Amino acid sequence: MRTAFTELLGVPHPIVGFNRSPGVVAEVTKAGGFGVLAASAYTPGELDAQLTWIEQQVGGRPYGVDLLVPEKFAAGDPDNLVASLRAQIPEAHLAFVRDLLAKYDIPEAPAKPVHDEIAASLSRDGAMALLDVAFGHRISLIANALGTPPAGLVARAKQQGVAVAALVGQAKHARRQIDAGVDVLIAQGTEAGGHTGTIATMVLTPEIVDIAGERPVLAAGGIASGRQMAAALALGAAGVWCGSVWLCSEEDVANQALKSKFIAAGSSDTLRSPTRTGKPARQLRTAWHEEWERQGSPAPLPMPLQPMLVNEAWQRIDAAAQAGHEGALRLESFFIGQVVGSFDAVRPAAEITREMAAECERRIAELGGLL
Amino acid sequence: MRTAFTELLGVPHPIVGFNRSPGVVAEVTKAGGFGVLAASAYTPGELDAQLTWIEQQVGGRPYGVDLLVPEKFAAGDPDNLVASLRAQIPEAHLAFVRDLLAKYDIPEAPAKPVHDEIAASLSRDGAMALLDVAFGHRISLIANALGTPPAGLVARAKQQGVAVAALVGQAKHARRQIDAGVDVLIAQGTEAGGHTGTIATMVLTPEIVDIAGERPVLAAGGIASGRQMAAALALGAAGVWCGSVWLCSEEDVANQALKSKFIAAGSSDTLRSPTRTGKPARQLRTAWHEEWERQGSPAPLPMPLQPMLVNEAWQRIDAAAQAGHEGALRLESFFIGQVVGSFDAVRPAAEITREMAAECERRIAELGGLL
Repeated sequence: MRTAFTELLGVPHPIVGFNRSPGVVAEVTKAGGFGVLAASAYTPGELDAQLTWIEQQVGGRPYGVDLLVPEKFAAGDPDNLVASLRAQIPEAHLAFVRDLLAKYDIPEAPAKPVHDEIAASLSRDGAMALLDVAFGHRISLIANALGTPPAGLVARAKQQGVAVAALVGQAKHARRQIDAGVDVLIAQGTEAGGHTGTIATMVLTPEIVDIAGERPVLAAGGIASGRQMAAALALGAAGVWCGSVWLCSEEDVANQALKSKFIAAGSSDTLRSPTRTGKPARQLRTAWHEEWERQGSPAPLPMPLQPMLVNEAWQRIDAAAQAGHEGALRLESFFIGQVVGSFDAVRPAAEITREMAAECERRIAELGGLL
Repeated sequence: MRTAFTELLGVPHPIVGFNRSPGVVAEVTKAGGFGVLAASAYTPGELDAQLTWIEQQVGGRPYGVDLLVPEKFAAGDPDNLVASLRAQIPEAHLAFVRDLLAKYDIPEAPAKPVHDEIAASLSRDGAMALLDVAFGHRISLIANALGTPPAGLVARAKQQGVAVAALVGQAKHARRQIDAGVDVLIAQGTEAGGHTGTIATMVLTPEIVDIAGERPVLAAGGIASGRQMAAALALGAAGVWCGSVWLCSEEDVANQALKSKFIAAGSSDTLRSPTRTGKPARQLRTAWHEEWERQGSPAPLPMPLQPMLVNEAWQRIDAAAQAGHEGALRLESFFIGQVVGSFDAVRPAAEITREMAAECERRIAELGGLL
């Protein structure tokens, strides 16, 4: 298939595989899609190792990286950022999370230390260290998931011939991204997993396409099949940016308990909630959300305080859920879009990529038959 | 274009024009679409006159009717339904609406009397009287917007060769409608105007298509252009059920002030709110919603009490807005989907129909070029 996106990046299928698991990124890329590593959960050293491994797997094929590089950095003591942010978390919030974990009888912290990685990437030095690692590898695209990219990022990308992409949920965001020099716009509808706005993909995509001019637009949100991919192309997108569909792939790093919950879920079983990151993000609705919605529960804190408050709790819940712990299985959740209702099996990421591309081509051919 | 829907109803374009204005229904039908009159706002006598007029206009072409026929009827004294329901509205709610109208200096009631028409159609006798009128005309389709149709409606429709359609927002609703004998399913996404659920059209449509088997599925929500129509067909729909797009047509009965507000609005300017009907319905966000959301404002009542509480207020607001009254213009609103952001002019309904069909065909042909 040939679109402005496949031309720009030299890939056979206009399918982006956005995921935190290097295995998914490599498999999507090898299958003819374009893998993008969600890098914000890694330290610079880890990111370097992951990108090196991906490059060994993909044999010269292009791939990309997604970072959280904010325009404005978190307010705290720059010399002691994590500690000064931690000090801003109210005791009532800490007590609420402690009580919640106790109520569900979640075992103590696992061996793996908490990185406070989101806080780290919200400091200028932390974000720049991750950028240095990314630009030290032969990436073809860098995406920024938080607002417009800082000027330094765009200049560096242009110099190295790396395309800059950005997620947008409203027309005004798209205009700002274009002014900032972005090459690829990702129109992310409300049905998407993770941080989303309120406008649906069906409405948002053509709106962003009309603003983008010659720039390729990828549609994100609600796309996990070839039919949905064909719909995105009909809306004027040059490809699809998929996140949720890979969370049920064999290569995804999530535990089997979470994948089983995804397979059991329906398309009504998600919600937009600020209880993980401090900003509304779509995720699987579980007992976690019941607890935060209960009368008397504290209001979620802003980013980056909320992730600092709950990240260790989530490491404990994930580890316990993986071990089959009943309380943890009730709480267990992750960012996922409404397409979760269509998941019926854990499959290899390469198979998902190839089937989506083939079904899309079939569907386009069938549409021609209606005329 | 040929789809299961155009074959079933014998129309050139798989585009439904759902609207309360007989002029829109007639013009969409004459342009090759399929007009459906939203009949629940009319008395039996008015409905009879409207359908007679439509039939005079369309010259034998097929058209349909949409009613609110609930499975369960409102709880009240059956001999004195409207009065017994009115008595259930708390005084605090009446005072809130009185104060709201006073605050915005909305003039007294216009000459036109309030019908309490929703309450009337929620009584068995009221609903049956409207059904009698509809079946007394040569309608080709009857749609029911509230739950599954009563058994009597389906039997009568089958006998007269009238297709029965139903709006669904979730897979389980679709299964219930199929069990009730419905012929056409309308998958209505959260981005639609009026009563909607939370699942987006991009996710809901293929899910309903897979349940529907041979029955045609129409996609609703987020569709106001040929690109969006092509996307709906890519998702497996046999056509599109459009409501919002006609609200900015010349033939729509809404006042020019409201149409101007629609043209000025962006796709973020809607919300799902129960403040008009008692159930979450997407509408243009205005000062009306600010007032209901204010701390201390009463919670909206259930259907049918909420529309009985606010219908007269809306008649006053609409009339004053039409006359250019400043306070009324701030409150003025109506049911509309997120596509409102794409409206840039008031156009004839026939032109909208023809352009949507032509753009859809063009887009499908262009998609073929990507392969």
